[in-house]
Amino acid sequence: MKAEIITIGDEILIGQIVDSNSAYIAKSLNNIGISVYQITSVQDDRIHILKALKSAQKRVDFVLMTGGLGPTKDDITKTTLAEYFEDTLVQNTKVVEHIKNLWKKYIKQPLLQVNLDQALVPSKATVLMNNSGTAPGLWMEKDGTVFISMPGVPFEMKALMRNEVLPRLSKTFKLPFILHKTILTYGLGESVIADRISDWENQLPNSIKLAYLPNLGRVRLRLSSKGFDKAKVQTDIQAQIDTLLPQISDIFVGFEDNNSIEQIIGKQLVKMGKTLSVAESCTGGKIASKFTAHAGASAYFLGSVVAYDSSVKRHILGVTSASIQRHSVVSAEVVEAMAIGVQKQFNSDYAIATTGNAGPTKGDSNAEVGTVYIAIATPKTVYSQHFVFGKQRERVVTKAVNMALTMMQKEIFKN
Amino acid sequence: MKAEIITIGDEILIGQIVDSNSAYIAKSLNNIGISVYQITSVQDDRIHILKALKSAQKRVDFVLMTGGLGPTKDDITKTTLAEYFEDTLVQNTKVVEHIKNLWKKYIKQPLLQVNLDQALVPSKATVLMNNSGTAPGLWMEKDGTVFISMPGVPFEMKALMRNEVLPRLSKTFKLPFILHKTILTYGLGESVIADRISDWENQLPNSIKLAYLPNLGRVRLRLSSKGFDKAKVQTDIQAQIDTLLPQISDIFVGFEDNNSIEQIIGKQLVKMGKTLSVAESCTGGKIASKFTAHAGASAYFLGSVVAYDSSVKRHILGVTSASIQRHSVVSAEVVEAMAIGVQKQFNSDYAIATTGNAGPTKGDSNAEVGTVYIAIATPKTVYSQHFVFGKQRERVVTKAVNMALTMMQKEIFKN
Repeated sequence: MKAEIITIGDEILIGQIVDSNSAYIAKSLNNIGISVYQITSVQDDRIHILKALKSAQKRVDFVLMTGGLGPTKDDITKTTLAEYFEDTLVQNTKVVEHIKNLWKKYIKQPLLQVNLDQALVPSKATVLMNNSGTAPGLWMEKDGTVFISMPGVPFEMKALMRNEVLPRLSKTFKLPFILHKTILTYGLGESVIADRISDWENQLPNSIKLAYLPNLGRVRLRLSSKGFDKAKVQTDIQAQIDTLLPQISDIFVGFEDNNSIEQIIGKQLVKMGKTLSVAESCTGGKIASKFTAHAGASAYFLGSVVAYDSSVKRHILGVTSASIQRHSVVSAEVVEAMAIGVQKQFNSDYAIATTGNAGPTKGDSNAEVGTVYIAIATPKTVYSQHFVFGKQRERVVTKAVNMALTMMQKEIFKN
Repeated sequence: MKAEIITIGDEILIGQIVDSNSAYIAKSLNNIGISVYQITSVQDDRIHILKALKSAQKRVDFVLMTGGLGPTKDDITKTTLAEYFEDTLVQNTKVVEHIKNLWKKYIKQPLLQVNLDQALVPSKATVLMNNSGTAPGLWMEKDGTVFISMPGVPFEMKALMRNEVLPRLSKTFKLPFILHKTILTYGLGESVIADRISDWENQLPNSIKLAYLPNLGRVRLRLSSKGFDKAKVQTDIQAQIDTLLPQISDIFVGFEDNNSIEQIIGKQLVKMGKTLSVAESCTGGKIASKFTAHAGASAYFLGSVVAYDSSVKRHILGVTSASIQRHSVVSAEVVEAMAIGVQKQFNSDYAIATTGNAGPTKGDSNAEVGTVYIAIATPKTVYSQHFVFGKQRERVVTKAVNMALTMMQKEIFKN
């Protein structure tokens, strides 16, 4: 059972937005046993959409589309879909009621004909109610291929996937179990890892696929397999992991599974009953926003100080002017003082601090662009490490965030 | 002149990563006059890549590929490209030298045969040197279509685009001028705007395309046109904008162009010689990281306090316990006190503050999920607004960030 995702919208093809819908849909489909064969992004253009639908139908069993369902003239997905199915649009009473209700309850602007026209759907379509917006999802079938059309607004699409599309797919089709296990490593390049584990890689059965995903200091190793016997798929992958881990114990950091590293840290802190605060200079709030992106962060995350200007390091974090003058703002002494400062100010058990020069020019220190110091304060001690992360600003910041999280994870899992 | 972008990698099709490369490439191509017809993401699979290359060749003049150029076994783009061109791989001496140099200067791990094999390239290919990594870019031509292959690691791809691909495309082909102008509006839905400006929209010439891009309270209107006469393209679009603006003056916020709203704010603050600090509760560091994502932020951005726990609001920001008890942490009084507190602590001219309940459960206040207060402190005064942003956590946070930036923009542009 294979799917293709078609995202529709000129804004994708001119690079005005990053298509993040596809990754969400692909991950959700994988979770219920459907592999995604291809992702195709096309323009808001009738001919182009028709061609894409026709090609996709030849390749896959399920076509999931997003975009082009709005009420304005540039939105043509619905009429084009009707044309592809040689169908006409009819008014759906349930959707009319839903739209009228939305306006009555939440929307102060007048209800226009174009809003009511959102209830026009192809007569052959099954309507998937969209409780977060006006455009309903549509489910249509042609010669054994299912076509599902959803709005492009991410939260509307996500709610439709969760509440309508995924349950209906799981109920209608007998789907296999797909398992991806991702091993996080830190410290060696992908070619060196591949060289070291080549005997193991060569003996992998065809049913298990291995991928190397390098990303700024970390390499993730992903093992994938699928089958209708869920227990067997799990046992087979686990057996391979058990053989692999002793060979990479020095660089093994943990498993990614569905949790990101900040979620793993958060869960562990909650388990330990401990709290965390952060003092960020060169990472500019990115570490805090990683933690707070997940619901429940308030159980362990007290807050953060983004000390972008060195006066903030002094006034809020209590780093002394003498220390800054003697060692410069980019130094082990200052980053450790920042960690202790924020730990004390916020009264947290642990603290992370970063200071560095992300470039492109030297800031208020003489440190080379790319120089970063990261400190961890624990209930008992404080320590820091020095890094040189290259010359590109974006890369320096991302590497610093990754490394700070890795250091924190190592700290709380070391026992 | 049309292009197709092909991104190669199983990690895209299982939703493990969001394909952000395509948006970067699409935007860069648009800037030099090349329209992107389609974006296609395919698996690390020989047959699938060959099919994608063949279909793309029929559709477009340029095919830009990323991914699958690494040194491990799952990377097969290069050999597949050689097969498509009925070509063989030969060693490129310049790339060998480059790799040896990289190892000599930066890499402590042993230089393996697989690393040296990165210098094997199709004999018909023009090599585009990759100074940020080991895999070179490749430029090949077949029956009038240009195929360009680049690594999937974003910073390597970006450097190759900037230094090699774009200059070479501009030099080799006579390309038109493409112009996108995006108008930011806030306050009305897309259907109401469309209704209001329908006469104007109906008289637009065919050469100018209009798109509506709704996003959580904001609607962006994008006008696009292209032609070989740059001055005419610019004049024609400007004439349409001059007619449109008086009709939407009440909701007009500004132009997006290539600057994001936080960059527009930053530039204006630098021009005014003023500074900014931020106190964030429900937005958890996202406002700070928006500002600090851009080089040069230190010229106006002093820092931020992420006050996730209410003790932080008291100790660091000086919000009184009495005020919190009387009004609750999610209130106009507290958010204004936070703004004044951070403005004072950081000694900044302006400050932004947010407090709210993003959900999914009620936090340390009784405010309904979705309730957000946003304050702006200026050199002369402080004020706040109250919002209800729905029930979905991600949506509440994004709306709050968007709204805080919009309020700040309005504040500093109001004269």
